[in-house]
Amino acid sequence: MCIETALDRLRNLLGSRFVTSDAVRSIHGRNETWYPETPPDGVAFPESTEDVAQILRICSEERCPVVPWGTGTSLEANALAVRGGISLDMGRMDRILAIHSEGLDAVVQPGVTREALNTHLRDSGLFFPVDPGANASLGGMAATRASGTTALRYGTMRENVLALEVVLADGRVIRTGSRARKSASGYDLTRLIVGSEGTLGVITELTLRLQGQPEAISAAICRFDSIRGAVDTVIQTIQMGVPMARMEFVDDRTVRGFNFHSGGSMPEAPHLFLEFHGSESAVAEQAATVAEIAADNGGAGFEWSTRTEDRAALWKMRHNVHYAYQTLRPGCMPMTTDICVPISRLAEAVLETRADLDASPITGAIVGHVGDGNFHTGLLIERGNAEELAIAKDLAGRMNARALRMGGTISGEHGIGLGKMDYMEAEHGPAWEVMAQLKRCLDPLNILNPGKVVRID
Amino acid sequence: MCIETALDRLRNLLGSRFVTSDAVRSIHGRNETWYPETPPDGVAFPESTEDVAQILRICSEERCPVVPWGTGTSLEANALAVRGGISLDMGRMDRILAIHSEGLDAVVQPGVTREALNTHLRDSGLFFPVDPGANASLGGMAATRASGTTALRYGTMRENVLALEVVLADGRVIRTGSRARKSASGYDLTRLIVGSEGTLGVITELTLRLQGQPEAISAAICRFDSIRGAVDTVIQTIQMGVPMARMEFVDDRTVRGFNFHSGGSMPEAPHLFLEFHGSESAVAEQAATVAEIAADNGGAGFEWSTRTEDRAALWKMRHNVHYAYQTLRPGCMPMTTDICVPISRLAEAVLETRADLDASPITGAIVGHVGDGNFHTGLLIERGNAEELAIAKDLAGRMNARALRMGGTISGEHGIGLGKMDYMEAEHGPAWEVMAQLKRCLDPLNILNPGKVVRID
Repeated sequence: MCIETALDRLRNLLGSRFVTSDAVRSIHGRNETWYPETPPDGVAFPESTEDVAQILRICSEERCPVVPWGTGTSLEANALAVRGGISLDMGRMDRILAIHSEGLDAVVQPGVTREALNTHLRDSGLFFPVDPGANASLGGMAATRASGTTALRYGTMRENVLALEVVLADGRVIRTGSRARKSASGYDLTRLIVGSEGTLGVITELTLRLQGQPEAISAAICRFDSIRGAVDTVIQTIQMGVPMARMEFVDDRTVRGFNFHSGGSMPEAPHLFLEFHGSESAVAEQAATVAEIAADNGGAGFEWSTRTEDRAALWKMRHNVHYAYQTLRPGCMPMTTDICVPISRLAEAVLETRADLDASPITGAIVGHVGDGNFHTGLLIERGNAEELAIAKDLAGRMNARALRMGGTISGEHGIGLGKMDYMEAEHGPAWEVMAQLKRCLDPLNILNPGKVVRID
Repeated sequence: MCIETALDRLRNLLGSRFVTSDAVRSIHGRNETWYPETPPDGVAFPESTEDVAQILRICSEERCPVVPWGTGTSLEANALAVRGGISLDMGRMDRILAIHSEGLDAVVQPGVTREALNTHLRDSGLFFPVDPGANASLGGMAATRASGTTALRYGTMRENVLALEVVLADGRVIRTGSRARKSASGYDLTRLIVGSEGTLGVITELTLRLQGQPEAISAAICRFDSIRGAVDTVIQTIQMGVPMARMEFVDDRTVRGFNFHSGGSMPEAPHLFLEFHGSESAVAEQAATVAEIAADNGGAGFEWSTRTEDRAALWKMRHNVHYAYQTLRPGCMPMTTDICVPISRLAEAVLETRADLDASPITGAIVGHVGDGNFHTGLLIERGNAEELAIAKDLAGRMNARALRMGGTISGEHGIGLGKMDYMEAEHGPAWEVMAQLKRCLDPLNILNPGKVVRID
């Protein structure tokens, strides 16, 4: 009953699909934030649900930690094997099993990435809307309850996962949910697994909602004199019920990064990046409404376009924000934070955060899916500089406290991983212990991604 | 440690707010389906969260069942105290605690009904969209994961409950969720409680999403030669992505009921009742699109109106369907069923069901929130006639099997209660046992609404 025995047994089971080389372990020990590389003891590459079930049975018997791995793009060290054990790389379970065009859903394995699914759907008139920026795996996106730029219109993974196949810690395989749009049949196990970050079960199949491509799409950009003007435009647009598809805020610092990164020359001021989906006339009407609200709030240079190239360029720039930040301080490591507040508190939350950053010795920029009340800061710290890391963690901690004070949450979309563990009790109070009870109930030996989300020992 | 002792202790605790009179017990023993009256041993009327916590502590100590009660409008005997114990009538916890107009949410106690909330919101420009027909309590609606006519556009209780206060079986009080629109912070306890039918905890406070009143609303009605024409209109409209607010199907038998009940003279043919929300022009455009689809599918007499009176009359007629059915067979008891299938299987599901009803000796009518793939039959059986009840149960069972065969669910919105227990294993397989594990974890003494949703003894 030890990790070594588990590794031997997994090697016997999986042959060349179980790897303990330094190179492969190293890749599965990396993370997109400040945690040091933490290689697992081995990496398993399952190719079927039965593989996953057998791996979990062995790991249960040997008390060996199992940490599911998608594409490694999570931002709070969610997939690090901090207690050793194995990384369960789902990348080979990457088949699109069914597209139900008439039912508007897709059945996929967890290793399919969102871009692979959308490429596959290209000629179908359908698309999968959830877009966290990174080309993450759909299994990982479900596990982290990802959202991103289009959640405003289409919801997060919470709303877009219809059904799951899940392998539990003891190797049992269950199916949750169905292809029906809604259900009042029993406990919502689908939503329990979505966002559980691999701590309650391993997702081996997903049924996802698809959307019809809108008849028309237009994108717009608008700059503002002040953060308040931009954020008030967002608040008023949401309150008026304009069915926005995307509504992204970037501050002046972020624009500077975009300019450095892509050689652009946007004025270094707060901007909104917008997208409208609907019929030709609806899209034009929505753009006109928002242009008017923006003008009332000091917006200038409102430009909109239905040209695919213009849109693609805009969102490519936005999606590259992580790299753009690196140009603001060459060689730095952007530490990315994530909070979400009620829309009525958004201006206050962003302004307080900006002031906090301005008072700090390190450079920080703000970007966010503000239509949801969700925003991030990129804190540009020197890799290995303990003092700067401490300042950045302190800034991030104050953002968490701010979110909670304003009735919000410490994570809108990045999840808890390791980075947010210290704030869970403050957010959830006695409900955090209830989460631990559920964890003990479904994973009594604590083998699934131990050390994350809940504290049980 | 017995129910008698619990009753004594509750009497001491609550005084006149604990009632064991036959009249009050009888009211709390009724249900909207065929189950015989099943009075609880007593009825408690808590007025605060602390009352609920104290009641649950006593009932835990005495192993006394506690069955939360809203307005008694559930349709699968969900709130019957089938193992005795007390009915926990939440009706006195009926305060609207806060309306956050700028944040678009409301904080309410569980006894507030949806109509009371909407009356309160009347001059605010906001409304709460979920509309199951009955003027149910919001706590009961959350517990049953209710939906209804507008779920197509605004989602069910799953999407519209942001946060909850819940008292657990042992008296612990927890808060789940926050006022933020989305969160990736820990397990989704809100969604675990929503739809748990009072078996995992008692809801003592809800934070609900509100919607802005759309600029324009229009309603439409259209009749069809055939069920297929009506249902195909629905499927094609959904597939085209028209953002419908309501899309209700009624068959010829249902129309006959409406005519009898409200003295109308609609042609006895399948109809769609529709509603569009949006800007003036969007509403007109949507209506034109659907009119065209309907015409292609044999629709006739498409009429639409933006007059509030016309709309109110249409939806009043629809909401009274339960009473309309009673006019089809005076003195009968309509037994109402509920399944939900993927939209692509809707025509098949409705047609098979209609054929099954036609082959049966009892009268049945079909009505449904078909835009979601969700529909009901009203089976008109004679009260106390065991033979007819057996036939009706058999028809309902075949509907459940049909839903599962087509990738759907045995309940879109009525929940499991007692009526659907026999089909849970068929729908969920080994996941049903996982639900039982969660129940044992959170309510180890099985005092909360025992005998419902899960089977644990």
